[in-house]
Amino acid sequence: MRLRLTPRDTTFFDLLAVLAGHTVTGATLLAELLGASRPEREQIVERLTEAEHEADEATHSIMRRLNKTFVTPFGRDEIYSLASALDDCMDAMDEAGQLIVLYKIDELPMAVSEQIQVLLRCAELTADAMPRLRKLDELPEYWVEINRLENQGDRLHRTLLAHLFDRVADPILLIKLKEVVDILEEATDAFEKVANLVETIVLKES
Amino acid sequence: MRLRLTPRDTTFFDLLAVLAGHTVTGATLLAELLGASRPEREQIVERLTEAEHEADEATHSIMRRLNKTFVTPFGRDEIYSLASALDDCMDAMDEAGQLIVLYKIDELPMAVSEQIQVLLRCAELTADAMPRLRKLDELPEYWVEINRLENQGDRLHRTLLAHLFDRVADPILLIKLKEVVDILEEATDAFEKVANLVETIVLKES
Amino acid sequence: MRLRLTPRDTTFFDLLAVLAGHTVTGATLLAELLGASRPEREQIVERLTEAEHEADEATHSIMRRLNKTFVTPFGRDEIYSLASALDDCMDAMDEAGQLIVLYKIDELPMAVSEQIQVLLRCAELTADAMPRLRKLDELPEYWVEINRLENQGDRLHRTLLAHLFDRVADPILLIKLKEVVDILEEATDAFEKVANLVETIVLKES
Repeated sequence: MRLRLTPRDTTFFDLLAVLAGHTVTGATLLAELLGASRPEREQIVERLTEAEHEADEATHSIMRRLNKTFVTPFGRDEIYSLASALDDCMDAMDEAGQLIVLYKIDELPMAVSEQIQVLLRCAELTADAMPRLRKLDELPEYWVEINRLENQGDRLHRTLLAHLFDRVADPILLIKLKEVVDILEEATDAFEKVANLVETIVLKES
Repeated sequence: MRLRLTPRDTTFFDLLAVLAGHTVTGATLLAELLGASRPEREQIVERLTEAEHEADEATHSIMRRLNKTFVTPFGRDEIYSLASALDDCMDAMDEAGQLIVLYKIDELPMAVSEQIQVLLRCAELTADAMPRLRKLDELPEYWVEINRLENQGDRLHRTLLAHLFDRVADPILLIKLKEVVDILEEATDAFEKVANLVETIVLKES
Repeated sequence: MRLRLTPRDTTFFDLLAVLAGHTVTGATLLAELLGASRPEREQIVERLTEAEHEADEATHSIMRRLNKTFVTPFGRDEIYSLASALDDCMDAMDEAGQLIVLYKIDELPMAVSEQIQVLLRCAELTADAMPRLRKLDELPEYWVEINRLENQGDRLHRTLLAHLFDRVADPILLIKLKEVVDILEEATDAFEKVANLVETIVLKES
């Protein structure tokens, strides 16, 4: 049983791909942020927030269209969940960027840039996978790879926590840095949630 | 297509309005708490916890009635989600009040009372909107205003974080204050989630 | 109206019972962890992570079977939610154990072992209750008792927070201990969520 979407509803896949594309922009800007000087950072975070607003609008237009289009309640719930989960990825990345600037963090441990590379890879794989939902095509390699990346992210996160508690003597700086690495970990979890939803759809529909 | 509720099921709207009414009590008590002396605070928090218990009972009676009444699965899920989301608003406000007393916080930054004014306004608008669900009447102005308030709350929260990290030298006090302002921000997010659910219902039903 | 499961689908109840059984293992290992010396702890946490992986696999096999078996969408969603909620219990307990080792915490306040006893009791009651879902039998005493335990856990958590903020002068140690007791509290909440789902199923089906 396929998702019962009539041809014009293929726009859902396009819209999900657009939404996932914003997460690629988000992760790219986070990577830029790490290497940037303080004054540049504010500009980069502004562009990150713009990407977050665009993702918000993409999510809303998916929701609006869902409510106006005939789809089975079944397909509706799944598209709704996918859009929400993608929006959560974006929100977490935006929040991380905002906090780095708000907390005036000058230097982040090296492993944070590895966390962000993991996020960027997740975002790229997700943006690639969304259009393949139309034919439920070659999706297992996508979710297997996301699960692998999430495990890698998890190990990085633990290493970072151990590092912070061993090296950072100033408790206030520790609170700031811990919040940033925790939110980056949440962003990776959010991409895994998207992949789990895709897996569920494929299993149900095939 | 309207929610398929028979006339006696209009009690769902009454019950949701009662539940939202408890959040108005909650936000009002939080506002009182800020101006109160230490000994008064314990009493106010007791009343807050009573309001939280009453909200819990209202939520449970909505759930019980949902399970005994014939409604389409569709309407059922939405009423269930609305009741849960309203309960989350109350829980977050209760937790904030509890922590202020538990942590023996003597003074909170001025902007915290602005956060609570935002919450109070959200609670009032939500309690006003619930009965209008019956006829799906004049609801867009409600959710637009809640979204505006949530943005305002978000800016307040960031200003507060910057303020705390700039001004509070004692890390233990910082941990306490940060947890309180973070939970107040979560409460505002919870009201926005209620408004988003209402928007979804209206779009689907109209 | 009963859950429309054909006889072979009784395996769902067995699978849920197996999954809940892993949470009993998890809580037992957490209790062991508290009394153990540093070198023993690493071994215990390894076994905890194994239990978490087994719970993950049990959850996945429930999901896969759900997607291949004819059940009403109704029953499907509920089994899905139960499995996810049980998995959340396990994840929180695993995370607590990991952090105790990662943070090299030598001594935990006495009340933490009471928190873990509450968790163990929750896990045992839940594992006992899962097979009774088949006949929707003697379940109210289960969810009433879980709700009582969750309230007890909540009081313990508040007592612990007050204790930590009164006694722990080192802010970095405070951050570590607070995260552990907060996650143990989340684990208790997750068991309550399982019980609430069971209550909803029973009310709907009876």
